[in-house]
Amino acid sequence: MIEYSERIAAIEQHLSQWEFPAEPTNLYDPLRYFIAIGGKRIRPLFTVLSAELYNIPLQESLSGASALELFHNFTLIHDDIMDKAPVRRGLTTVHEKWDTNIAILSGDVLMIHAFQALTSYDADIFKRLSLMLNQTAIEVCIGQQMDMDFERIDSVTEADYIEMIRLKTSVLLGCACAFGGIIGGASDSSIKSLYEFGENLGIAFQIQDDILDAFGDSAKVGKQIGGDILSDKKTILYTTFQSTASATEKEEFLRLSAAANNEKISGIKALYEASGVLEYCTKKQQAYQERAMNHLAQVECMQPKQNLFTLAEFITKRSH
Amino acid sequence: MIEYSERIAAIEQHLSQWEFPAEPTNLYDPLRYFIAIGGKRIRPLFTVLSAELYNIPLQESLSGASALELFHNFTLIHDDIMDKAPVRRGLTTVHEKWDTNIAILSGDVLMIHAFQALTSYDADIFKRLSLMLNQTAIEVCIGQQMDMDFERIDSVTEADYIEMIRLKTSVLLGCACAFGGIIGGASDSSIKSLYEFGENLGIAFQIQDDILDAFGDSAKVGKQIGGDILSDKKTILYTTFQSTASATEKEEFLRLSAAANNEKISGIKALYEASGVLEYCTKKQQAYQERAMNHLAQVECMQPKQNLFTLAEFITKRSH
Repeated sequence: MIEYSERIAAIEQHLSQWEFPAEPTNLYDPLRYFIAIGGKRIRPLFTVLSAELYNIPLQESLSGASALELFHNFTLIHDDIMDKAPVRRGLTTVHEKWDTNIAILSGDVLMIHAFQALTSYDADIFKRLSLMLNQTAIEVCIGQQMDMDFERIDSVTEADYIEMIRLKTSVLLGCACAFGGIIGGASDSSIKSLYEFGENLGIAFQIQDDILDAFGDSAKVGKQIGGDILSDKKTILYTTFQSTASATEKEEFLRLSAAANNEKISGIKALYEASGVLEYCTKKQQAYQERAMNHLAQVECMQPKQNLFTLAEFITKRSH
Repeated sequence: MIEYSERIAAIEQHLSQWEFPAEPTNLYDPLRYFIAIGGKRIRPLFTVLSAELYNIPLQESLSGASALELFHNFTLIHDDIMDKAPVRRGLTTVHEKWDTNIAILSGDVLMIHAFQALTSYDADIFKRLSLMLNQTAIEVCIGQQMDMDFERIDSVTEADYIEMIRLKTSVLLGCACAFGGIIGGASDSSIKSLYEFGENLGIAFQIQDDILDAFGDSAKVGKQIGGDILSDKKTILYTTFQSTASATEKEEFLRLSAAANNEKISGIKALYEASGVLEYCTKKQQAYQERAMNHLAQVECMQPKQNLFTLAEFITKRSH
């Protein structure tokens, strides 16, 4: 994403200079550590680029952009506790490096700092941003709960799955794009279109993520292929297969589920291809991406939308 | 608190009709359960009474009042996880009745609903309330971290202890009183005085709590006396003793610390009395209460302050 490197650098600098109190160190050191680990900073980048459609200089959109990145990091710290994840982005997670209590509390205070980041805006803008972040944040929690519930449920439909990823991850991308419109003084209908652009793009992104986990190139994706298959995760591939496969295909799936790792991965992948599940999901992914682009096309603004189109293409057509 | 029963009833009704989504049940059932357990609703009552100083009808102060009660309940749900507490107000805690993951996530979403409760106010008031709640919420987290840190530290000074209780519990009472002033359109100096009234009252209340745990009447307090002594908790009595006692008194304290429960409680209580610690702490408590009353006296408003004075007396001069 070389063309956005200046904006990413500004976002990184803004985050690194975040004025967390020095003490208590057990509360704030974990946050300084976790936020410095990095990440792609996709959400703040979408806020910044959306605001640019309305000639808003970077310095004015950075607070809103950072609020979303702080909020996102809060969700990661707490999700890592719930998932008992030892590693995030190649480094030890907060609850492992410190302890669970510290991860709970530093996550809590990080969420508050996210809300506080919005107070740099005038009262009217502040209220609109807060309303949207409140609603989005509630939906993200609902999505996380659905995701945890799915682990204990036998039959998860495709619609359930799409709704879960919409809430857990996509609404925050919708919020990021809408933030740019709100900061830029866009019309209500354009703010809505920006939101729906981000939301649909988020769903497309997540479906792509599921497909790449099974069918990506290990070297490019940067991790072992087939992790979701091995852990019987209820991805879009899995849920589609369960609702469309024939009895024979399902029997074969059951047999493969109990097979050795390599056979399980290659066998189930072959089944996803032969049964048309891979093709179906790929088309689904493209449909969400097209829908996203159509919403973006509806946005009325002052500057060309090329940067947003390019970034959207980049994150959904990626091969890793 | 019979004279406030109508307001308490209105607060209870407002909370019980809170529009949490019906699903996911694993996210929202814990909140419906926990909020219905009740509590004294002290914080919202202070907001309502403070707003009445400016002729604000109950219906207008209830959202701000409820925001603080929701926020307070969020802190209790997460604190109970951190403290591994099995029981709260006589009923099973959320993490025990459901599980830790559900308690983390339902606490998270409750905090967001607390912030969302403020959105019923106009943009200017909304921003002022949000700023104050943000700052207060951050301080509450810092106080909770200090409290956890104190368990691992040998020497906690009286000043450290007062600062911890100020942050962990008193600032929220300050915030509750200031909320009434903000909603009522009070001057900045009166909002500040209301805040300092609540903050000092909160410290007096917490010191009283420590004293009653050791010297209260078991039947009135409703629990076994001496729990803090048995668990070697670093209360105001403990920290004062450690910084003022003679070498002989400290030796005696050490001996009693290892004694059987009854001897430990009665012996250490006797030591607190003989060494002047009880008297010192009682005076300290009175000093904070007087300071609180002086701040309340400074508040400029339209209605008499008798209700606030009475409630303040009631909660700090209680014997249970």
